[in-house]
Amino acid sequence: MFGRGGELPESIVLRDVTLRDGLQDEAPIPTEHKLVIFDALVAAGVRELELTSFVRPDRVPAMADADAFCAATASADVVRWGLVLNRRGVERALASGLRHLQFVVSVSDTHSRGNAGAGASEALEALEASMAPALAEGATVEVTLATAFGCPYERVVEPQRVVEFARRVADAGAASVGLADTIGVAVPTEVAALTTAVVAAMAEQGRPVSVGAHLHDTRGLAIANALAAIGNGATRLDAAVGGLGGCPFAPGASGNVPIEDLAHAFEAMGVNTGLSVPGLVEAAGLACDAVGRGVASAVGIAGPRFL
Amino acid sequence: MFGRGGELPESIVLRDVTLRDGLQDEAPIPTEHKLVIFDALVAAGVRELELTSFVRPDRVPAMADADAFCAATASADVVRWGLVLNRRGVERALASGLRHLQFVVSVSDTHSRGNAGAGASEALEALEASMAPALAEGATVEVTLATAFGCPYERVVEPQRVVEFARRVADAGAASVGLADTIGVAVPTEVAALTTAVVAAMAEQGRPVSVGAHLHDTRGLAIANALAAIGNGATRLDAAVGGLGGCPFAPGASGNVPIEDLAHAFEAMGVNTGLSVPGLVEAAGLACDAVGRGVASAVGIAGPRFL
Repeated sequence: MFGRGGELPESIVLRDVTLRDGLQDEAPIPTEHKLVIFDALVAAGVRELELTSFVRPDRVPAMADADAFCAATASADVVRWGLVLNRRGVERALASGLRHLQFVVSVSDTHSRGNAGAGASEALEALEASMAPALAEGATVEVTLATAFGCPYERVVEPQRVVEFARRVADAGAASVGLADTIGVAVPTEVAALTTAVVAAMAEQGRPVSVGAHLHDTRGLAIANALAAIGNGATRLDAAVGGLGGCPFAPGASGNVPIEDLAHAFEAMGVNTGLSVPGLVEAAGLACDAVGRGVASAVGIAGPRFL
Repeated sequence: MFGRGGELPESIVLRDVTLRDGLQDEAPIPTEHKLVIFDALVAAGVRELELTSFVRPDRVPAMADADAFCAATASADVVRWGLVLNRRGVERALASGLRHLQFVVSVSDTHSRGNAGAGASEALEALEASMAPALAEGATVEVTLATAFGCPYERVVEPQRVVEFARRVADAGAASVGLADTIGVAVPTEVAALTTAVVAAMAEQGRPVSVGAHLHDTRGLAIANALAAIGNGATRLDAAVGGLGGCPFAPGASGNVPIEDLAHAFEAMGVNTGLSVPGLVEAAGLACDAVGRGVASAVGIAGPRFL
């Protein structure tokens, strides 16, 4: 919608981020509980998911079992992504058998300094250096561009700067870039325009570089933004069951966009997701129970249309 | 978005429905409390609103003060709509000084029999008879087409049937038709297609007949559906502060789409609504307090972007 695009594709990838993004700020739950949620997600049709992150256990205790959880899920026929922040994380992820590694860099200098301790350009250079050993081992690399639609400190982030960062990480070997609405400020017109620009830039790479969107429903616009992204060339959306995940400004207001709401919406519009909405709602119940939160998805509460 | 349209207009009308649709199923509140909410809405820039309904007080006690509330708000420079169900309601509304009358007819036979005690065609004939005296008095008449996107009993409602009903009520003199997603089942592709079809049919009337949408967020799609309607020729959306209003299937899941979320979204996209988002959030607090509910809007909880 908006701009030149708007037509929906035949199918999309909804990548579940419950086990990493959804759980990372919660009190740790046992690996066996994570496995129950993992199995429910796979049973619901999930074929691509964020599994864990390789970060310091003292900083993110909920991800302290990253190595063990990778080992326990090694036989599943799904794409398992692991988040890494530096070279040490890359080594751990590769040693754990993961072959899909996610990196994050903030497009905003101020946000980057606060989050990564370095300005955006410096962080980007460090990222390129960390990516190299992963690529050398044949891993698939994705880079998420944080604050792509706005920064809590600088507010507006210039789309041209996002496009430039996307080119840089693609030049460095990324197979995929993610546009993250880190603080839930994007609106559909902006999502459409930025997605269009980044997709066009990736088309010049001479090899396929996919574009995805990572959206939060902080201001009620996540599903409209998802349609704007998918209608303009993005092929993948991140989402978590029950809307689990952090919300930097308004605890309780919103986490990640609920995957069951996205699956329901796209399936109802004839776009194949490969997912079972009731299966996802079941997984949402398990995951939300495990962390003591209510299911914060519309379809989880009201049920799908036309039961 | 979708289909031929998608471009957003310069401005839209967000019609506040808090005082009628939002309060009708709540325990009655004093007329003076309604006046405080009314004043807050007007202060927030609302220029068109559903004020009340002229129905049997034993059926809808919250609207028993319809006549007094009309008298108390007569001097305000806003368009005040009153809902009427029959000839008796028309007489009361006109006697109360209202000049904007809303009627409702369900497009689905089964839903119409349950709600209005007559099949859809019979109800439409009764409606045409009730409209006549209102039109004769020079009143502006709008007809809301209930279950336009789906029926709880018949599920799918044929778009061609909705177009036919829209033609019938326009032929009978309606200045405006509303497409109501009564049970919150619409998806953006359907909203775009039906809006396009109804707008095209109204363009053949030889006089302006506006098209609006009445959406519920039951399955998380209200804002995406609003964009689909506005992007394809609808000029008006119904909405209530704090998401107040009934939800037939899932109490607590959703009421009307929150007007502050719509105003925030459209203003952020450069579409003029004439509304103050902080003013609407203030009105939401007043209205939700009055009925003992929490504010169920994203912007009411998280605040607008880029404060």
